Parts: sequence; C-alpha cells; structure tokens
Amino acid sequence: MSEIFKQIPLYRFISYCDDTGLDKTVLDCGAGGDCPPLSLFSEYGYLTQGIEFSTSQLEEAEKYAKKKNQNLNIEQGDMRKLKFADETFSFVYSYNSVFHMKKEEVLKSVNEMKRVLKKDGLFFVNFLTVKDFRCGQGGNLGDNQYEQLDDNMPVIHSYYEEEEADVYFKDMKILFKETRVVERIFEGIPIRQGFVDYIAVKR
Amino acid sequence: MSEIFKQIPLYRFISYCDDTGLDKTVLDCGAGGDCPPLSLFSEYGYLTQGIEFSTSQLEEAEKYAKKKNQNLNIEQGDMRKLKFADETFSFVYSYNSVFHMKKEEVLKSVNEMKRVLKKDGLFFVNFLTVKDFRCGQGGNLGDNQYEQLDDNMPVIHSYYEEEEADVYFKDMKILFKETRVVERIFEGIPIRQGFVDYIAVKR
Repeated sequence: MSEIFKQIPLYRFISYCDDTGLDKTVLDCGAGGDCPPLSLFSEYGYLTQGIEFSTSQLEEAEKYAKKKNQNLNIEQGDMRKLKFADETFSFVYSYNSVFHMKKEEVLKSVNEMKRVLKKDGLFFVNFLTVKDFRCGQGGNLGDNQYEQLDDNMPVIHSYYEEEEADVYFKDMKILFKETRVVERIFEGIPIRQGFVDYIAVKR
Repeated sequence: MSEIFKQIPLYRFISYCDDTGLDKTVLDCGAGGDCPPLSLFSEYGYLTQGIEFSTSQLEEAEKYAKKKNQNLNIEQGDMRKLKFADETFSFVYSYNSVFHMKKEEVLKSVNEMKRVLKKDGLFFVNFLTVKDFRCGQGGNLGDNQYEQLDDNMPVIHSYYEEEEADVYFKDMKILFKETRVVERIFEGIPIRQGFVDYIAVKR
C-alpha cells in the first residue's frame, strides 16, 4: 500500500473527478515541493501536468518523482499566465498555493485556471481565511493581505472572509465548499489555521 | 489502485497512526455500513476489529468485506459498554457515529473508547455541531439533542458547540482538532453540515 499524502482534501477531489467519467487529465498549479500531490493522481491513473513558480520547489518535486519513478510533467510556470490552450484539462486544481499573492493576482490565477478547464470539468482551489492565526501579522498591504516571512523569505498571504471567494465561482456551480478551522501542533507549537476549500464544475 | 473511501478525515488519522510506530491494532465503534472504513485500515496493514449496533448495517459491512475478500472482524456490539479489556488497542475511532445518541450516552461511549485504548495510543472521534442545518429540527430533547428521522426511522442526533466536546479530552492531549462547515449537494438538494473532528493521544 502506498503512502498517505498530507494533502487530505485532494482525496475527496479525486473521488469527485473519478465520478465524472471525464478523461483523466489534470493540471496542478503550484505543483512543487517534497510531496507533490500529482503523484497521488498518477497512482489513480491520471495523466498529470503541473506548473510551479519556485525553482527550488520544482527541484524538490523532481527529486521525489525520480525516486518513485513517476513522470509528473511539472515545469516552471506562472499560474497568472498559463501557457495552455483554452479547455485543455478535465480537472484543474491549486492546493494551499494560490493565496501566496495579492488578491488581484489571485483573481487572475483563478481566471486562468478556469480558462484551461474543459466544460463540465472540475476545479479545486482553497484559500486561507481570516480565522488563521497569522492573519494580521507582518506588513499590512490592506484588505487582509500581509507580507510575512516563510523560512525567513518574504511571502505574501491573502486571507479571505468565509464567503468572500464565492464570487470567483459565479459562472460555475459549486459542488462542495468546506470552511475549516484546524488546531494542531506544528513543530511543537499549537497553531490555528483557517481554510476554505471549493470544488466547482465549469458550465 | 484501490477505491477512495468517502470517510476522508480517516486518511489523516491513518497517517497519524502510522507515525506513532505502535502495533497496528485498531477498533472502529460504529463500523458497519456499505463502505466500512476498516477496509481502508486493512489495506494499510492494520489488524482490525469493529463493533456495530445495527444488525442491518452489520450485514452491509459483511457483504462488502466478503466481496473484497477481507476479514474485518466486525461484530454486533454497543460502544456504551465495550467487551474488550482495558488498553487493548493502539488506535480507536468512531467516525460519524457517536452523536447518534444522547450526550450522557456519548460520554459513556467516549469513556469506553478511552478505556480500551493503550497508553500513547490515538483516538479519533467526531461530532455534529450546532451549525448543522438539521440542528433545531425534530423532537427537542433539550441541550441541542433532537429526535429526527433518518430513512423514516427515528434517530437521535446530538449537536455540539464548537468547544463543547473539548472536555472529553481533558485527560488526553489533543493533537488535531478540525471544526468544519460543509456545503454540498446531497440527492440534488444543497445542504450544510457542521462537524468537529478530534485526534487525541492517551497519556
């Protein structure tokens, strides 16, 4: 039996994708890191494609895929401007990633992901909420956008009210929305995280 | 690749269990139904035991296990009074089940599950919250407890404030708590569900 991936909500997304009966083509925007979830899609028979902005995260993913002998097709790219044609993929997702930019850029990214998604295809995306313990910390850029430090590197985090991101799906149908507050121990310290996850279908 | 189980939060629980390095023995309280999650534990190499109050749910689980050629060891039982000795299992869980009784009985059940759990073992349990769309419907038994109908059968549902169930874990350490509001389409109708999930370790 294979490992359990830490991106738990994507198990549900795969289940929704499987149920559509569409061609198993999937794009991950923000696909890098040392545990790339496209590997899970690959195990479930999906043809995968990923883009990743950070070259170091890209290298981590390549190392992982090589070790598992998988070809995940992850390359350097920017989700604000995808190189793919309209309606290329049955499924598109971005997990714990799109909120690392200002909201005006989040909007661009969401629109790009919707553009490359086929009609009747499914879109998963999630956002940080204002209930997250880090909302309010760091350099205030207004509208719950903050410049913060991740591993001593400056990173923007955009935080959303629980209904705020609904507007991104006005031209879609939301099949599943989960608003979550997680309390857990991270590196010995109790933290509280706030997320809102969406699964929507393109009309 | 095997199916995706619909009890998504249990993927996380397995991941926590795997990380402990304890013997892979697990008890599910409320283990029946047509998609018994012990099957997932079995796939991950766990020695499984389950109890189920409802004989019809028990039969569904047996049918499923037979088809998959698994022996899940699910038998008829009552989680308010477990027949197992103290500290029998490394892992004990009850998923979407314990709230089908009055809160005084939930307390009994939680105490029983903690009793049969080994020291350093992990406990997963979840509860409905007062944010659930059905909270307030049906016969009011007080303290957010209602007698409602599931498939035309009378069933009690107990609903909890988001911090209310914390008291059950006063003698444990909570490793993970997730408070969730789910909006989804169920049999064509939009519904809103409220849950709070706990993973705690026995001291």
